[in-house]
Amino acid sequence: MKRRTVITSGAAGAVLAPLAGSANAQSEPSITWRMVSSFPKSLDVLFGAMKLIADRVSALTDGKFQIHPFGAGELVPGLKVLDAVQSGGVECGHGPSYFYVGKDPTFTFDTALPFGLNTRQQNAWMYSGGGLELMREFLRGYNVIHFPAANSGAQMGGWFRKEINGIDDLKGLRFRIPGLAGRILAKIGVVPQQIAPGDVFTALETGTIDAAEFVGPHDDEKLGFYQVAPYYYYPGWWEGSAQASLFVNLDKWNGLPPRYQAAIEVACAEANAWSTAEYDTLNMRAMQRLAARGAKLRPFPKDVLDACYDAAFSLYDEIAAENANFRKIYEAWTSYRKDSDSWLRIVENSYDSYVYDRSKRT
Amino acid sequence: MKRRTVITSGAAGAVLAPLAGSANAQSEPSITWRMVSSFPKSLDVLFGAMKLIADRVSALTDGKFQIHPFGAGELVPGLKVLDAVQSGGVECGHGPSYFYVGKDPTFTFDTALPFGLNTRQQNAWMYSGGGLELMREFLRGYNVIHFPAANSGAQMGGWFRKEINGIDDLKGLRFRIPGLAGRILAKIGVVPQQIAPGDVFTALETGTIDAAEFVGPHDDEKLGFYQVAPYYYYPGWWEGSAQASLFVNLDKWNGLPPRYQAAIEVACAEANAWSTAEYDTLNMRAMQRLAARGAKLRPFPKDVLDACYDAAFSLYDEIAAENANFRKIYEAWTSYRKDSDSWLRIVENSYDSYVYDRSKRT
Repeated sequence: MKRRTVITSGAAGAVLAPLAGSANAQSEPSITWRMVSSFPKSLDVLFGAMKLIADRVSALTDGKFQIHPFGAGELVPGLKVLDAVQSGGVECGHGPSYFYVGKDPTFTFDTALPFGLNTRQQNAWMYSGGGLELMREFLRGYNVIHFPAANSGAQMGGWFRKEINGIDDLKGLRFRIPGLAGRILAKIGVVPQQIAPGDVFTALETGTIDAAEFVGPHDDEKLGFYQVAPYYYYPGWWEGSAQASLFVNLDKWNGLPPRYQAAIEVACAEANAWSTAEYDTLNMRAMQRLAARGAKLRPFPKDVLDACYDAAFSLYDEIAAENANFRKIYEAWTSYRKDSDSWLRIVENSYDSYVYDRSKRT
Repeated sequence: MKRRTVITSGAAGAVLAPLAGSANAQSEPSITWRMVSSFPKSLDVLFGAMKLIADRVSALTDGKFQIHPFGAGELVPGLKVLDAVQSGGVECGHGPSYFYVGKDPTFTFDTALPFGLNTRQQNAWMYSGGGLELMREFLRGYNVIHFPAANSGAQMGGWFRKEINGIDDLKGLRFRIPGLAGRILAKIGVVPQQIAPGDVFTALETGTIDAAEFVGPHDDEKLGFYQVAPYYYYPGWWEGSAQASLFVNLDKWNGLPPRYQAAIEVACAEANAWSTAEYDTLNMRAMQRLAARGAKLRPFPKDVLDACYDAAFSLYDEIAAENANFRKIYEAWTSYRKDSDSWLRIVENSYDSYVYDRSKRT
């Protein structure tokens, strides 16, 4: 049993040898930290996960350890969170590691790989399968310790102005999609576009782009894409799970009393679970509203999925061949994924598929 | 957004209005509690979840709040945990609420219903969909506040001496299976048996019973059933998720400082997530060993699942007609389940089914 994996990481002294009776003024200093986000406050579940962490840490310390959350751009640009934490400019920050694949594609294992682990598997790999240790070893190079701290679950495949009936419909398609998924789609003829969320609606409306992906019904609904690109495709195979992490500057972390370290670690575990639960409830309600307003749900055609799957794993092999960090974690991840797929296919997928089918018919 | 659902429940003062600067000797009294379990220590993940809660609470309080875990039977029989907590004989206890369906079948919503919510849905319903509030209102009648605190994920359908090729093979089958699932199977001709875990192997070996269900590969492997009943069926449709809770005596709870309440609440959320991750990793490895030793995986035939599904919902309707507690929660649960099934079928099940299928072929 690898139980200690979770609770010793970074807080070994706190958990394994509680300092019974040793409390004194020094063990509970008054500390104020800033927590910057890669997300705007309008992504209320992701920002809510940050607030939950801050509120919980405060409650656990009788208010002596205060962490103030800031939305993307308030103190630090959303794509510079890791840099700000690394330098110690801020004590901690929250966001998805895969925003930093430009530094090193290895970051993506901390968030999502196209056709990779689902949320259940990501959590199992992180908490129990060795994934968190591997990612921490990698992130130590950035002077950071990190904690899984939010997960959206599987995302949607985005909004399309026209139906996609097969792979030929993707040739030349101008699709707002970032990161590795864009590189994969480029291999089969898509023209990936990088557009800030606030500009996507107009680009879709005017036909500057043909399609755009964002998150899922709850977040997408606010941006109104269904009005100008009604075909809503699934699944978002590039994010079968999407983890955000809390990054903590390693020097600041090492300066914390063990009980404050324990408070951060456990609050992140709670926020990670809570955010998925909250997304599941809000997404199911938003999807009903979107359908009532004319959004047309469509599954990606099988030949599209097949071509993208092949392109994805071909890309991973290419990256692994040239990047030792990526290769090391890719090998461990591939082994875990294969075994986990074999098991969850039997016990979970057979149950889900049967029950969902019956539930639909009754 | 219902974020406050999680963090205010029972600990409102702690989270919403942290007592900044008000710490004094009284806010951190030295307290020792006993936590009794419905599980033997041999169920190491479930017992491990208890130890994780105790260790985490200790770390968060610099050792001042100590909770000592006891296995089933050490202080209190495994099926009397709720009674012991209700009376205040012990401060808290850990186990599945559905052990108490004899008192009131309403308890089952806190653990599992046959063909009910999967683990993802159970967590979403509890943390974000109103389920925890409903169950707490019900459990208040037993002088208890409770917290989701472990989940096995979907379980297996058990070990059979002979293959089940259709519903006729279930007529007269002597099957070790407890609770509501036994009542459902009795409706289609099975003869449910109640046998303690330690006696099941011999009963299977001698043919006193024809089949037995327990948990999943990791726990089942230790009991050796594969040697005498090699057909291992899936899915365990009676436990598509199986939550255990921490029950806390309400008077003892109300006597805790807010920060100690917060420590229990957050530690349970962590243990709930950790236990599923740990089961997923250990089960996938145990399944590989069991298969290598001759266990024969078999899916339940569709006519068996169909008959059991119909019998299950017919039973729930019968219970709801005569029990107002059950009816109230069944209505809320049914509504949540229907909406959640519709949504997760689209976004998660389509992803899982495609990826698992490709992963199997490559």
